[in-house]
Amino acid sequence: MDPHAPAFTLSRAADTSLTEQLSARYAERIRQRLLLPGARLPSVRDCARRHGVSPSTVVAAYDQLLAQGLVEARRQRGFFVREPRPADAARPAPHATAGAAGRPRPVDATALIRGMFHQGSTLPAPGMGTLPAEWLDLPLLHAAMRRMMAAETRQQAGRVASLNYGDPAGDPALREALVHRLADSGIACAPGQVVTTMGATHALDIVSRTLLQPGDSVLVDEPGWAVEYSRLSRLGVRLLPVPRGPLGPDLDVMRSLLKAHRPRLYATVSVLHNPTGCSLPLAAAHQVLKLAEAHDLVIVEDDTYAHLAPPHAPRLAALDGLQRTVYVSGFSKILTPNWRVGFVAASPALAERLIDTKLLSTLTTPSLPEQAVAWCIAHGQLRRHAERVVMQLDAARMRSQRLALEAGCRFVTPPQGLFGWIDVGADTERLAQRLLDGGWLTAPGTLFHATPRPTSLMRINFATSQDARFWRALERARG
Amino acid sequence: MDPHAPAFTLSRAADTSLTEQLSARYAERIRQRLLLPGARLPSVRDCARRHGVSPSTVVAAYDQLLAQGLVEARRQRGFFVREPRPADAARPAPHATAGAAGRPRPVDATALIRGMFHQGSTLPAPGMGTLPAEWLDLPLLHAAMRRMMAAETRQQAGRVASLNYGDPAGDPALREALVHRLADSGIACAPGQVVTTMGATHALDIVSRTLLQPGDSVLVDEPGWAVEYSRLSRLGVRLLPVPRGPLGPDLDVMRSLLKAHRPRLYATVSVLHNPTGCSLPLAAAHQVLKLAEAHDLVIVEDDTYAHLAPPHAPRLAALDGLQRTVYVSGFSKILTPNWRVGFVAASPALAERLIDTKLLSTLTTPSLPEQAVAWCIAHGQLRRHAERVVMQLDAARMRSQRLALEAGCRFVTPPQGLFGWIDVGADTERLAQRLLDGGWLTAPGTLFHATPRPTSLMRINFATSQDARFWRALERARG
Repeated sequence: MDPHAPAFTLSRAADTSLTEQLSARYAERIRQRLLLPGARLPSVRDCARRHGVSPSTVVAAYDQLLAQGLVEARRQRGFFVREPRPADAARPAPHATAGAAGRPRPVDATALIRGMFHQGSTLPAPGMGTLPAEWLDLPLLHAAMRRMMAAETRQQAGRVASLNYGDPAGDPALREALVHRLADSGIACAPGQVVTTMGATHALDIVSRTLLQPGDSVLVDEPGWAVEYSRLSRLGVRLLPVPRGPLGPDLDVMRSLLKAHRPRLYATVSVLHNPTGCSLPLAAAHQVLKLAEAHDLVIVEDDTYAHLAPPHAPRLAALDGLQRTVYVSGFSKILTPNWRVGFVAASPALAERLIDTKLLSTLTTPSLPEQAVAWCIAHGQLRRHAERVVMQLDAARMRSQRLALEAGCRFVTPPQGLFGWIDVGADTERLAQRLLDGGWLTAPGTLFHATPRPTSLMRINFATSQDARFWRALERARG
Repeated sequence: MDPHAPAFTLSRAADTSLTEQLSARYAERIRQRLLLPGARLPSVRDCARRHGVSPSTVVAAYDQLLAQGLVEARRQRGFFVREPRPADAARPAPHATAGAAGRPRPVDATALIRGMFHQGSTLPAPGMGTLPAEWLDLPLLHAAMRRMMAAETRQQAGRVASLNYGDPAGDPALREALVHRLADSGIACAPGQVVTTMGATHALDIVSRTLLQPGDSVLVDEPGWAVEYSRLSRLGVRLLPVPRGPLGPDLDVMRSLLKAHRPRLYATVSVLHNPTGCSLPLAAAHQVLKLAEAHDLVIVEDDTYAHLAPPHAPRLAALDGLQRTVYVSGFSKILTPNWRVGFVAASPALAERLIDTKLLSTLTTPSLPEQAVAWCIAHGQLRRHAERVVMQLDAARMRSQRLALEAGCRFVTPPQGLFGWIDVGADTERLAQRLLDGGWLTAPGTLFHATPRPTSLMRINFATSQDARFWRALERARG
């Protein structure tokens, strides 16, 4: 399903040497930008272990890449992907296909996000997408989990959640708790309209697989998050980017795309949008819903940053009453990204279809973490924790903002929530490469464009950008 | 993506009454066999709650279904789906499309499996697909989980698995433990070749999404598990059923399908096959691999019942060394179905692509349950538990077998493992309906055919078929 992934090499196993296969594999990934300039190749030892070959095979393969000019060796630091030469850049990737309106499909972002999981540096990571681990409340998570296990020991085996598949819609206690929480945001629904998932990503995946067919068109915010673009592209869906700013999506562009392409749905982060931090103004929300109604458009509202937002921030799902909006959220940005607890709320009829898709993707979801999250919600622990985090984030934002301004950066949108969207005055992809050499992980603007292009924009995480050394490194790297 | 699911009704919300929408929705599901004859509709109260309407709306909607002859009312028991009238049966479902070789697509199995999650009876369920909860070791699961949490409290936040996304490939300790376990089955691989998933279903989903494109053909065992057929169908893949018996797949049929349709992969349960209980003989495994090599076929080996199998049972992945086989397994059939811990092992290059797909579907998987399973494997707890379960299952199988034979049933294949595949001498779909009226959940043979058809075959779970009352009920229902 992935046009950018390297070809499946098994059938060529007998024809080419291991060295050639390995070097061809990396060359393909580099040409297809699955490995971006500046990315470090695995160490010889790691690579040998990962591919089950000898270190000498890896050294020979890396030498071939060096000879092809695809990588460069840096003394005592290993092999790094080089900037493409003009001839390479002009050559299209073997499987590249045109998306909507003649745009090429976006670069597969999974390789980029995988880099974020393996930063391998002890420095704070201004490019990361979550709260730092130190801000999370491990004793709370453990206490909630222990309570749920203790409760299980008092039940008959047939009723113990941990011993049975569980309700395909998700743990009933969590769905009940979510109904109350959603009511606080003005979203009225019944437990039967809530389906739990393995995090918001899984929820978005289930919604997309339920509502979309290959060839369908989908409106997406631009800038937006590359992983979402990538998943939609892999479903064979055509992306129609709509410029997103402080006033919401560009309604004129949206209107003309609706007429020209009749998209099936609009995927958007309405509150504390990633990467701009903007929340949709109430009037814009009303206009978007009117357009959606006129063009029979389904809106998937991704409210991943719900717990960091002011309580009064308007949600599309609240205005619309989950009629043509589908609401997605989770707990990765407030409790922990590891437990993978998320959910989707939808109309009763659509919720049933989402359960069907969930069954085909993971059957059910684990009960213990869902019950533990339900307990944190129902006993006010989540609210109190979120209040603490928001205060901490407010302080971090002020400090990071000051440092960014002192470093000569400009905020493209007003600083809010977890992310700042800044103009650093130099190409951020090259900058990201130089900063990574110094151990600083950043999120260059190209990660947030449906069609990657040179940009001087960058997303910073306010929580992890408070270290003055980072901003000095940025100034030096900018040269 | 689901051709059988009811149309998305939001855009008609203003035109038709809630009663009409509700009754139309159920009528559609019944006609499309998402609700099978004998299925009970939700209670009026449940239905009202689930769809956020008043009970009187539900009563009116059920009355309409009654008037249409789609359901029948049973005194004090509720509303049940009726056998279709001949005129209804002859009319194709609105969205039915032809699959490979002119076969209609299989009925969507998700509604059937959803029934299994909601049996609502206190009687044992001979139709269920897992071990009874009473056979599982809750203290072991809890002890493992508590140990992992205790270890986390001793770590720095940045290193605590529960506070970070975790390795996209899955918990390193589990992948290391799995490498050792796979070696016991003769499957040699490195940790870099193992990717953890939310159960085997998620693993199969990730593999399918990585390797298949809409329009591809796939060889599947028949009989086989309807949920697998359903998922592949929803990916737009054409199913090519290969008859599967005690000697393995019918190689002549496989050969001619390979020539005629050039399928991309073969999805099979080689050991303790569901529903027949048969394991692939070594000679047949060799022939299958030779065919696969000659036709550049990838084999997805689903070893879900691994822990119930004799240690010497040959795996295709062991013969092939994970060259063109992809190995999938999990812990739902031995530790607990609720934790959703599974994995896939593949060639190094394919493993990388599987991680990319995993990232787009759930980002990562939760670490605590993976670490707990790793601990159960590494400390011999899983092995000892499995030995106890296998002994218990051996005894249950003898008893269930005797009762089945006394009830005049015939074993189509030799009784082994968790499932018996029996001929009861009467149409099992009708029988399943009658038995469900008495509270007995069964798995009629039609659930295991790529093209549902009347059959006198049925799958029993040896662990849950030891109650003599069930067999008496079966004899009565058979009439």
